[in-house]
Amino acid sequence: MDPDLKRSLDRVFHPASAAIVGVSERMDNPGTLFLRAFQDMGFEGRLYPVNPRHGEIMGLRCYPDIGSVPEGLDLVILAVPPAAVPGLVRECAASGVGVCVINTAGFSETGREEGRRLELEIMQARRGSGLRLVGPNCMGIFSSRGKTALFAGMFPTPGRASMISQSGSLSSITYVTALERGLYFDKIVSSGNELDLNCSDYLAYLAEDDHTGIILAYLEEVRDARRFLDKAVKIRGRKPLIVFKSGLTASGSSAAASHTAAMGGSAEVLAGAARQAGMILVHDLAEMLDCATALYHLPPCAGGRVAIVSAPGGLAVNCADAVEWHGLELASLRDETREELAGFLPAEGTSFSNPVDLGFGAVIPGNYLKALRILDGDPTVDVMITVGTAPASRDGDIGLIAAITDEMLEARSVISKPLVSVLFPSAFTSTHMAKLHAAGIPAYTTPTAACFALRAYLDFHRQAGEGAGTAE
Amino acid sequence: MDPDLKRSLDRVFHPASAAIVGVSERMDNPGTLFLRAFQDMGFEGRLYPVNPRHGEIMGLRCYPDIGSVPEGLDLVILAVPPAAVPGLVRECAASGVGVCVINTAGFSETGREEGRRLELEIMQARRGSGLRLVGPNCMGIFSSRGKTALFAGMFPTPGRASMISQSGSLSSITYVTALERGLYFDKIVSSGNELDLNCSDYLAYLAEDDHTGIILAYLEEVRDARRFLDKAVKIRGRKPLIVFKSGLTASGSSAAASHTAAMGGSAEVLAGAARQAGMILVHDLAEMLDCATALYHLPPCAGGRVAIVSAPGGLAVNCADAVEWHGLELASLRDETREELAGFLPAEGTSFSNPVDLGFGAVIPGNYLKALRILDGDPTVDVMITVGTAPASRDGDIGLIAAITDEMLEARSVISKPLVSVLFPSAFTSTHMAKLHAAGIPAYTTPTAACFALRAYLDFHRQAGEGAGTAE
Repeated sequence: MDPDLKRSLDRVFHPASAAIVGVSERMDNPGTLFLRAFQDMGFEGRLYPVNPRHGEIMGLRCYPDIGSVPEGLDLVILAVPPAAVPGLVRECAASGVGVCVINTAGFSETGREEGRRLELEIMQARRGSGLRLVGPNCMGIFSSRGKTALFAGMFPTPGRASMISQSGSLSSITYVTALERGLYFDKIVSSGNELDLNCSDYLAYLAEDDHTGIILAYLEEVRDARRFLDKAVKIRGRKPLIVFKSGLTASGSSAAASHTAAMGGSAEVLAGAARQAGMILVHDLAEMLDCATALYHLPPCAGGRVAIVSAPGGLAVNCADAVEWHGLELASLRDETREELAGFLPAEGTSFSNPVDLGFGAVIPGNYLKALRILDGDPTVDVMITVGTAPASRDGDIGLIAAITDEMLEARSVISKPLVSVLFPSAFTSTHMAKLHAAGIPAYTTPTAACFALRAYLDFHRQAGEGAGTAE
Repeated sequence: MDPDLKRSLDRVFHPASAAIVGVSERMDNPGTLFLRAFQDMGFEGRLYPVNPRHGEIMGLRCYPDIGSVPEGLDLVILAVPPAAVPGLVRECAASGVGVCVINTAGFSETGREEGRRLELEIMQARRGSGLRLVGPNCMGIFSSRGKTALFAGMFPTPGRASMISQSGSLSSITYVTALERGLYFDKIVSSGNELDLNCSDYLAYLAEDDHTGIILAYLEEVRDARRFLDKAVKIRGRKPLIVFKSGLTASGSSAAASHTAAMGGSAEVLAGAARQAGMILVHDLAEMLDCATALYHLPPCAGGRVAIVSAPGGLAVNCADAVEWHGLELASLRDETREELAGFLPAEGTSFSNPVDLGFGAVIPGNYLKALRILDGDPTVDVMITVGTAPASRDGDIGLIAAITDEMLEARSVISKPLVSVLFPSAFTSTHMAKLHAAGIPAYTTPTAACFALRAYLDFHRQAGEGAGTAE
């Protein structure tokens, strides 16, 4: 990639120094929230609050303006009224600042002439300098190793996922709910209106970033679409790229315009481009996290022959449907496998074909684990889905779910094949889902969701097997 | 409906007397579990355990056989080995029993000749008598007012939903997870292999049952399909009928055969029939409960113009897409509404068109409620969806979600229009979802799920408006 762009984005994600303009003593002031967010992360660079009316804020010396900060800054966060932004960008450009994150909203996304005029002024203000801009109308940067954050209460847990999000709140919802699924981020950029740096720039950077193993993108408008696709093709089969594109309908597109001044786009064009570039296209946050969880946790996999292990028979049938709906294949178990299963399971209310239905055999401790070990040894099986561990009554079977969860956790350490779980959401299941995720077993709420995610996961590994895209 | 059939099904759901054959002192014995299930419900009829080797079980006098029970029985549950069933059915027929629930599995669903032969013997055994059969390979009957249960740990909470399920475990999962969504059942029948009484019989009964306001059906094979459709057409616009049909693919159909000996069926034929009969067709348990929750909780509604109130902008755009994907319409808010919203919300990072984006205005107490009241008064709006109440950080915004949930609960009592909520699932949100459900506010995990359910809900009320089907 372009070395100047790379240097700018290195400074974005690993700033040695950062200033925040717009801090005050009010704790709900956006600038002050950024200060708290950086402190929560244990930011290790130099941190400079800027406000001419204060001598000190949150234990840090306060500077009257950018020019008086005693060093060249990698990063400046602007959390000030819109009209003040162009002047501050000019000041940053003059002081040799690397990157401005413009948190401020109230620009082209308002649909007002004034907003568009201010954006033009901002671009004029940086002209001729090396200053690059993130935003405006964004939450900025999370960097696990750079120790910067979008919001207070984020933590520098190491992770292999990175995210580009044109919505700040969506990046934060994704961060929080992903970590409950055992999925941690290395980098997140909330890119807002993308006046200067855009999703294609970020993708170019993440594509070559050794700490990013999987990329999530929430996009309302793909700026520089040809370049974005170009980058996507280059990482095909090397790094999964999951794209949640919104604004695909007339209603959504008009909502996107007032959210980030986005121009929408055609669903058909996008689907075609996704196929070509091997991107994983999803339609909501649930699908995005479902796919990401499979791709994050599961080992590489060569084939799509699925074995289902179930206790609730109805959900097993539904799962067999879902397997076929998503272009996967039910494994035809070998005879030895059926015989081994018949050796310890009841003869009635069970099935030793695929789906394997444990029936009431599921309540006998160790049977889930036995079945999984047998299927792990059957060469006709590539992937395993366990379905159920169903609550049989309002208070009856909590012990059963706990026991079966424990067997799956035990299975994870003795079996070699990818394993996912389907647990229908209930007050009984959420803690067990959290345990499964922590052990690297993706858990889904329906067979449909599990098979959708497995499809994306298997497609990626098939592409990887076919010969991945090459780095620039 | 046929008066003999009605009388039999009255005895199924409101038995004055019931015997359970196959009880023992082992607490995990299926017959003993039924005994416990009836006792948990506070069954008010006479209850007779049958076992020649015991004098008393769980405080009840035990009888050696059906013939020695001192009255004509409404209901007999058989939980005995398959080979013993034909003889017992003959005994029941001779003793004038109303209905046998055959819990036993091991018949045609095994694919073995022996299983099919036993089923023929059972049908011969009842010939010439008025005895009807539920099952075999089923969990039997839950009746809230009849105080019978499928499983131990069920409770006679009054409800307006009823269910037909060819899977016993699926009926129990639905029961448990539905009650967490504030949705309670009057009747559930787990119908198993449907050797005698079938889903069309149950539908005929529930169609005319005054205590059933909404019908859920999990079906692997629709026996007597023409009659089933006939009944469905008759309740079109009067009672929502939600059909979760599995076994629609070759894989699913073969799994269904070994589960309940079902014959599968074509997805296309089913979809056509559903359109004609006004049935709501769903593809998994999540969709079934999503639709049921909307139809159970929300008041009648005449139009499909949706207003969205959101704080996370990305999810608002996604929700606008979902509205259009599901054939709903974004309301064009009147000017007065926009002005009222602008009167108390920040000018930046917000939107006063639809979706209404509260932006950081969401954190100010009372703003969600204010926005909902304003939209409730706007005649361009038929239905409202709130999106978000997002966790902004791992520990930061629990208070915010709680506050916004409280505002929605307050809104429910002062607004008149249907209101649903979208909360992305997280450890933070589950208790709030439970609170919303308890207050009759359906809560969904994605905009897509919410709009899918609203589509089903609005279709039903449109049919109701067009003139509903008529009772027999």
